[in-house]
Amino acid sequence: MSQEPEADLSALPSDRVRLRRKPGRGRYDRAAIDAILDATIIGHVAWVQEGQPYATPTNVWRRGDRLYWHGSAASRMLRASDGQPVCVTVSHLDGLVLARSATNHSVNFRSVMVMGTAHLLTDAPEIEAALEGLIEYLYPGRWAQLRPMTVKERKATSVMWLDLAEASAKIRAEGSHDDPGDETWPVWAGVVPVVVTKGDPEPDPFVPVGLPAPEVRLP
Amino acid sequence: MSQEPEADLSALPSDRVRLRRKPGRGRYDRAAIDAILDATIIGHVAWVQEGQPYATPTNVWRRGDRLYWHGSAASRMLRASDGQPVCVTVSHLDGLVLARSATNHSVNFRSVMVMGTAHLLTDAPEIEAALEGLIEYLYPGRWAQLRPMTVKERKATSVMWLDLAEASAKIRAEGSHDDPGDETWPVWAGVVPVVVTKGDPEPDPFVPVGLPAPEVRLP
Repeated sequence: MSQEPEADLSALPSDRVRLRRKPGRGRYDRAAIDAILDATIIGHVAWVQEGQPYATPTNVWRRGDRLYWHGSAASRMLRASDGQPVCVTVSHLDGLVLARSATNHSVNFRSVMVMGTAHLLTDAPEIEAALEGLIEYLYPGRWAQLRPMTVKERKATSVMWLDLAEASAKIRAEGSHDDPGDETWPVWAGVVPVVVTKGDPEPDPFVPVGLPAPEVRLP
Repeated sequence: MSQEPEADLSALPSDRVRLRRKPGRGRYDRAAIDAILDATIIGHVAWVQEGQPYATPTNVWRRGDRLYWHGSAASRMLRASDGQPVCVTVSHLDGLVLARSATNHSVNFRSVMVMGTAHLLTDAPEIEAALEGLIEYLYPGRWAQLRPMTVKERKATSVMWLDLAEASAKIRAEGSHDDPGDETWPVWAGVVPVVVTKGDPEPDPFVPVGLPAPEVRLP
């Protein structure tokens, strides 16, 4: 719902998000970043309180140029991070990479790190629109089918957001690599893919027979 | 390889790791914590540099009373976090929980947060033992089959660890819950499990025909 144009990050990644190690794995364009964010259900929010960093796992979802997360209005994490620097990271493990030496083992993955200032949404319509965004992101078409949100429920929910202006993606999606001369070492090498799938839906006792489970986004 | 007895954390969770929200989901016993850690490949390390928190995704593995992670000896993250407070979080998404109101949607998950001081391993045998621990954790029996690690390789690798003394687990593993009166709202509710599986192994071109891929730990 953001009205701002999408920033072109490919020109100048900030020093904080620029990859130093294996820079060939870095991507700074919004297309790459959005593709990874939009395949994500759980992210990790890094925040600091009294010098102690925390990595809090939570639902994250993108709308336009913002990344959102939410929780109880009573959450100490949300209250403490409003106006503070945070880093939100999402990561997908796509495969295990086995080589013939320990050092050349790796993993195939896609990750995004976003840095900036966390903001608490305070406008009631914006809060409700953001929560609708989460439901629609996970379950397209579902918001309109739900029992409408009450004012009390909305007030019990805090929604945070972070601008996507400072972000980087990191991707490894390739086979194993051995040092020259190691290829004939007699041990298996290659990639074991990691696949995330849906199990059979488990309806609660009140679901009418024959009503199918909705489409669900998966990481 | 730790010689220390496993601490009993069930008695007194610290204020930093004690769950305030939905305390019924909290577990502080090492059996629950270890079970989640030992089903993990990727964790997120929260650390701070110049006031900016980072959540860095990386391989994590447990040995005794320590949680380990590693990286290049040139990594700014590892150098910056030595002796500093960190939080290492692992999380597994087990299912999507759909209710008849937006607020009652949830996810089934298992997560662990560990807080404490990060330490850089400096003793060469300890570094090698820790790296052996990672390979053996992911691929039991593989370390002895690999081309042995060289001194140069070991020196290019930094290994960090964190004591498990201050840790908590959080688990949701149940069905959906609706408010009284919502059960007849005509929309599907229940759980859609999320399942992580192995894909077909993809051997590199040098693997002899008929050599099977090793057993691999999965989250």
